[in-house]
Amino acid sequence: MSNQSNEKQADPTDTAAFAVLAGISTATISTTLMKNGLRNVWIRGARDMQAQGGGRLVGRAFTLRFIPGREDLSTPESLASPYSTRGAIEEMPAGCIAVVDAMGITDVGIVGDILCARMRQRGVTALVSDGAIRDIAGVRRTGLPVWCSGVAAPPSVAGLAFVGWQQPIGCGGVAVLPGDIIVADEDGAVVIPAAFLETVLATAPDTEQMESWVLDQVNAGRRLIGLYPPNQQAADEYASWQKSQPGNRRGGE
Amino acid sequence: MSNQSNEKQADPTDTAAFAVLAGISTATISTTLMKNGLRNVWIRGARDMQAQGGGRLVGRAFTLRFIPGREDLSTPESLASPYSTRGAIEEMPAGCIAVVDAMGITDVGIVGDILCARMRQRGVTALVSDGAIRDIAGVRRTGLPVWCSGVAAPPSVAGLAFVGWQQPIGCGGVAVLPGDIIVADEDGAVVIPAAFLETVLATAPDTEQMESWVLDQVNAGRRLIGLYPPNQQAADEYASWQKSQPGNRRGGE
Amino acid sequence: MSNQSNEKQADPTDTAAFAVLAGISTATISTTLMKNGLRNVWIRGARDMQAQGGGRLVGRAFTLRFIPGREDLSTPESLASPYSTRGAIEEMPAGCIAVVDAMGITDVGIVGDILCARMRQRGVTALVSDGAIRDIAGVRRTGLPVWCSGVAAPPSVAGLAFVGWQQPIGCGGVAVLPGDIIVADEDGAVVIPAAFLETVLATAPDTEQMESWVLDQVNAGRRLIGLYPPNQQAADEYASWQKSQPGNRRGGE
Amino acid sequence: MSNQSNEKQADPTDTAAFAVLAGISTATISTTLMKNGLRNVWIRGARDMQAQGGGRLVGRAFTLRFIPGREDLSTPESLASPYSTRGAIEEMPAGCIAVVDAMGITDVGIVGDILCARMRQRGVTALVSDGAIRDIAGVRRTGLPVWCSGVAAPPSVAGLAFVGWQQPIGCGGVAVLPGDIIVADEDGAVVIPAAFLETVLATAPDTEQMESWVLDQVNAGRRLIGLYPPNQQAADEYASWQKSQPGNRRGGE
Amino acid sequence: MSNQSNEKQADPTDTAAFAVLAGISTATISTTLMKNGLRNVWIRGARDMQAQGGGRLVGRAFTLRFIPGREDLSTPESLASPYSTRGAIEEMPAGCIAVVDAMGITDVGIVGDILCARMRQRGVTALVSDGAIRDIAGVRRTGLPVWCSGVAAPPSVAGLAFVGWQQPIGCGGVAVLPGDIIVADEDGAVVIPAAFLETVLATAPDTEQMESWVLDQVNAGRRLIGLYPPNQQAADEYASWQKSQPGNRRGGE
Amino acid sequence: MSNQSNEKQADPTDTAAFAVLAGISTATISTTLMKNGLRNVWIRGARDMQAQGGGRLVGRAFTLRFIPGREDLSTPESLASPYSTRGAIEEMPAGCIAVVDAMGITDVGIVGDILCARMRQRGVTALVSDGAIRDIAGVRRTGLPVWCSGVAAPPSVAGLAFVGWQQPIGCGGVAVLPGDIIVADEDGAVVIPAAFLETVLATAPDTEQMESWVLDQVNAGRRLIGLYPPNQQAADEYASWQKSQPGNRRGGE
Repeated sequence: MSNQSNEKQADPTDTAAFAVLAGISTATISTTLMKNGLRNVWIRGARDMQAQGGGRLVGRAFTLRFIPGREDLSTPESLASPYSTRGAIEEMPAGCIAVVDAMGITDVGIVGDILCARMRQRGVTALVSDGAIRDIAGVRRTGLPVWCSGVAAPPSVAGLAFVGWQQPIGCGGVAVLPGDIIVADEDGAVVIPAAFLETVLATAPDTEQMESWVLDQVNAGRRLIGLYPPNQQAADEYASWQKSQPGNRRGGE
Repeated sequence: MSNQSNEKQADPTDTAAFAVLAGISTATISTTLMKNGLRNVWIRGARDMQAQGGGRLVGRAFTLRFIPGREDLSTPESLASPYSTRGAIEEMPAGCIAVVDAMGITDVGIVGDILCARMRQRGVTALVSDGAIRDIAGVRRTGLPVWCSGVAAPPSVAGLAFVGWQQPIGCGGVAVLPGDIIVADEDGAVVIPAAFLETVLATAPDTEQMESWVLDQVNAGRRLIGLYPPNQQAADEYASWQKSQPGNRRGGE
Repeated sequence: MSNQSNEKQADPTDTAAFAVLAGISTATISTTLMKNGLRNVWIRGARDMQAQGGGRLVGRAFTLRFIPGREDLSTPESLASPYSTRGAIEEMPAGCIAVVDAMGITDVGIVGDILCARMRQRGVTALVSDGAIRDIAGVRRTGLPVWCSGVAAPPSVAGLAFVGWQQPIGCGGVAVLPGDIIVADEDGAVVIPAAFLETVLATAPDTEQMESWVLDQVNAGRRLIGLYPPNQQAADEYASWQKSQPGNRRGGE
Repeated sequence: MSNQSNEKQADPTDTAAFAVLAGISTATISTTLMKNGLRNVWIRGARDMQAQGGGRLVGRAFTLRFIPGREDLSTPESLASPYSTRGAIEEMPAGCIAVVDAMGITDVGIVGDILCARMRQRGVTALVSDGAIRDIAGVRRTGLPVWCSGVAAPPSVAGLAFVGWQQPIGCGGVAVLPGDIIVADEDGAVVIPAAFLETVLATAPDTEQMESWVLDQVNAGRRLIGLYPPNQQAADEYASWQKSQPGNRRGGE
Repeated sequence: MSNQSNEKQADPTDTAAFAVLAGISTATISTTLMKNGLRNVWIRGARDMQAQGGGRLVGRAFTLRFIPGREDLSTPESLASPYSTRGAIEEMPAGCIAVVDAMGITDVGIVGDILCARMRQRGVTALVSDGAIRDIAGVRRTGLPVWCSGVAAPPSVAGLAFVGWQQPIGCGGVAVLPGDIIVADEDGAVVIPAAFLETVLATAPDTEQMESWVLDQVNAGRRLIGLYPPNQQAADEYASWQKSQPGNRRGGE
Repeated sequence: MSNQSNEKQADPTDTAAFAVLAGISTATISTTLMKNGLRNVWIRGARDMQAQGGGRLVGRAFTLRFIPGREDLSTPESLASPYSTRGAIEEMPAGCIAVVDAMGITDVGIVGDILCARMRQRGVTALVSDGAIRDIAGVRRTGLPVWCSGVAAPPSVAGLAFVGWQQPIGCGGVAVLPGDIIVADEDGAVVIPAAFLETVLATAPDTEQMESWVLDQVNAGRRLIGLYPPNQQAADEYASWQKSQPGNRRGGE
């Protein structure tokens, strides 16, 4: 059985929280975090390789770290070491999102079809990186969702050296710690620091619902001034509307 | 009614001119402007977010200007100011193309679905920027055509401060003045300085038709030398062919 | 007849070799070249303009070289010179891949629909460049496969000056000599130096087949450690499996 | 008399405040602003062209704005317009620091010796830009202190178009409003938003004095932990020392 | 004798012309070329490695060309080939300026002390490149003036492959043809296309003298408007002054 | 006493080896490493902040690692943590070279005068980074030699978060492991992987001496071809000369 080493079960609290987050855009999450003092949470260069129409994915960050390649470190032989990308993948819990610090090096592929297939087997939710992947045709066949900088044919050892996992990393100009929450959709991937999860859950669904109401108003022909952001009158209008809704929080259901 | 504040009618001269321009590729317009001394008219980094198959759009530039963000200027509260992107949008005339100087900052979104929906309501033809948009899924639903650098989840205030509209701006390395003509297609967006509109209208349709004839010749197996650009013999051939055509200017009909 | 000047026939040895290469991904070719000491063979910035689903193309490099534009050199008149892109195209043998050094300048188009149509007529297999193309809609209609940095409306003479063909060039940070072999697929384009062709043919098909077997193992739930790269036991398993296959080399048939 | 048009006298409050700021490093000012929520106040790319040993200069920002050049706007003739860099310089009050938004374009010179000589004549304190200057030998002879990205021989009109003065600008990735306070030393130039001047004056001199005491402690062999930043014991020690000093604030005298 | 192979004498016309050019700043030459339609003549990234106080040097361009390195081409052995930088240096005529296209690669040194010493021996006037040099301490001892992007310790073969000399090249974003005239001073290096030499000689000295007169006027307290560029009255004043001068052209004596 | 916690003595083998290395330029070391298969050993962006005339320094790497800043991690309070740059400095052994991975972020200063003073107190040989330092005037007064990207006024916490020491890092595009040997001179800083030290010591001094002999030959007027690299005859000449020298290895004495 493929997942016998992967017995760790998802935290039920996470499961509930992530269901809520799956209903909130990364745009709204970014706004919420900014209102709480965090301006740098969006991973530059990690774009949705599935292109238009993809859904939104949520998971705890499992981090991998590369440094620039050096011919004595970056050898085909190094790939056989337990202390390699292979070793890291075998430690990934189901439901995590693998976040890979490629130091912005985009001319080698950090992983290809085989490693992505194994991540998929282990129940990894997605791969996010500021680096590139290789064998995109094969990776697509594995079904593993990927957000990254693009494609590159050469193997990682042509330009990178792997140094470890579950360390703090930088990815696309953003700090990511193991266990932070990653949310990724068509706008890219954002990091919710673990300590901010409660705050986001407490306020982002309301923001999402309010923006949905505002959009309806705009589509009905209403002007932006006083509406978005809402002045007192618009806020009252929204509150009335919200109370009239059967379920009070769109994002939460 | 949504457009009651937008009573300004399109200039009928513009309407006729823009119908001609809609038949001329930005490639041909660039060549025409270069022959008239302008080498720097293509907006770098503004790509067609609708991807393959889109049409060509034409409009007068309505400019918006951002500067880099500063925490005391770039606040969620600043969005409620009349002197904000909201205020700018409410001033946009129908048929204009909004051109946004984001100073090449591509890690925040200058607008999202709500603002794009309002621009659409006001009859804005398209949005062009060297910056990014946010909530691409929502923006796509509004139907507003967008040429920009890509997507980014964070709000504009996470990295930009809005400073005004209808000023001269730089966008993607190109100078754009309010009232210049913007033409955008799959090759991106080019600026026709207002004073050069007549020149472009006078010569670009012929170039377009000539290139169409050249392409037919090439597809019939003819060599490039002497044909493109045409030597005297080829020019004569083209002139004969052109006279034989029912309407004399392909681009103009 | 369009190809009368193009009588040169493809080398039958090349034909056989290229059929093998068409079955091997650029990822595997990169790995093979790296094991033979070449880390810098992937052309940065040359992406598949046909997007998802394209096949793999192989050909000898026919090189073109630009330098930065200068107003006295980069004139519309210069295009009529026999020593121009036009002249170069008329020298291209059928089956070659045109590789164009645009010095990384991506804000002008090196060629448009007419030149691509003529290349197609002459039997050119593909165009590869670190520069941009113009009139993408028209180029797409010609059917010429293109790997490049993107699109740009302005003509080459707005920013580049053509200086010759069949010289050694740099393209996307990689050295390309006339006659080197180019292989391009969804991961981009790689260069096989002519002297390394035999080496690649001798080992890459085995690698490709081995990776295919590894992928099957992974999909069956096997762990990566000891499998990829294979330890002695896995190598033996693979060897047994390989012997049991009707044809011994997948890539070679 | 050269300055007859420049009768505006420096604000005496500014004079006192700037004397204090002249004793505080841009490093300490940056730290102070960060503690008050502003992380983006240092102008990237503006380095001290006088090199080692220069002093510290302080002044209100007088802003100039360029956009990318366009051949119809960026003409030698445009320089004669009253709405030109020349016009801007004749409006500069004595004691100001000219801050020039060159949009990060560093391959033309925004000003040369003649314009710098005139600024010097008008009592301008310094020039700060993310662009380049030209005729560095001549500029050095004028004695005008300059912080900028380097040198470039071509005139501004070879790549920039001037659009106005005393507007909000971006300079080196930082927002600068007319009237903000600029402090420049060997570490570069920082912006103190006008509304933050009091805050900086109230706390930065103490920080500067404390760091001076800490440095003495380190030079006497003390460890960093507990000292910098100071724990309670170290803070008490510093407070005692500070009381024992003849004048209580180093920066203020 | 070291220069026996270097018997070629400087062209006496060149000698006279270059003496004039030595009195004209690269800033003024750039302005003159721009007025004649050339905006792109300043070599980006080539800065004066002798720093402050250096003089101005003039010579015909002798071009060298590198492409990106490839391990099979960029070997220590390749340095022994007659078709190497060594071979190129032995072909350089006395008085030339070596202009090296390093494709903007700045992390290897194109030459070190030994090659610079040999260039000095052969009477080479200067070295100009968009690349880096190595062993700056040794190069300084040779006395060869150098304008380049900086220093880098690794040998050229760690990242570049040499491909030839006296070909058209790009250097710092500028086209340079063999035989073009290079002028370099503290503002960097500019290219005068050979066909423009007469034009520059005919007008630049006057510009230089006029700017000198303008500077004197500014230093005497005169305002810029109407003076620079001069209106009719100022032009008349200058003409009178010029007639009163003992020698009529500063730059020419 | 300041160094009581720093009792670790330098390894006597290192002392002897480093004395040899101090006589060999980073240029020669780079060439030696390249001949042994390592092309990527020079730290990009780390330039000698003491400018012209500095000596050569050698030491074992003591690594520090930053990731991009995040407002919840990068706080003034974080500086008081034992797990901070302060903690790292108190662990540095005398004679080491601190190598700091700033992820190429150059708009904040990684350390200022106080931390450099403490490093100097602890006997640290030098600081090398791809980041910037702050308070350059103060750092210069401490006497600590620094190779870095330049200066920046803001504190590290304005853009970076410190995550640990003595981990493998990337610095200026080069992999550096704790204990690797760093050599820095006017050409910048190179890394000798610990396992390559013997190889460098065994061959680089000879190369250095040979290049010195070649330079003398060139200065005497000899041509490059056959001399550098030496053909058999030149190699024999050098061997004779070398035998005639009183001490056989210049670098070693």
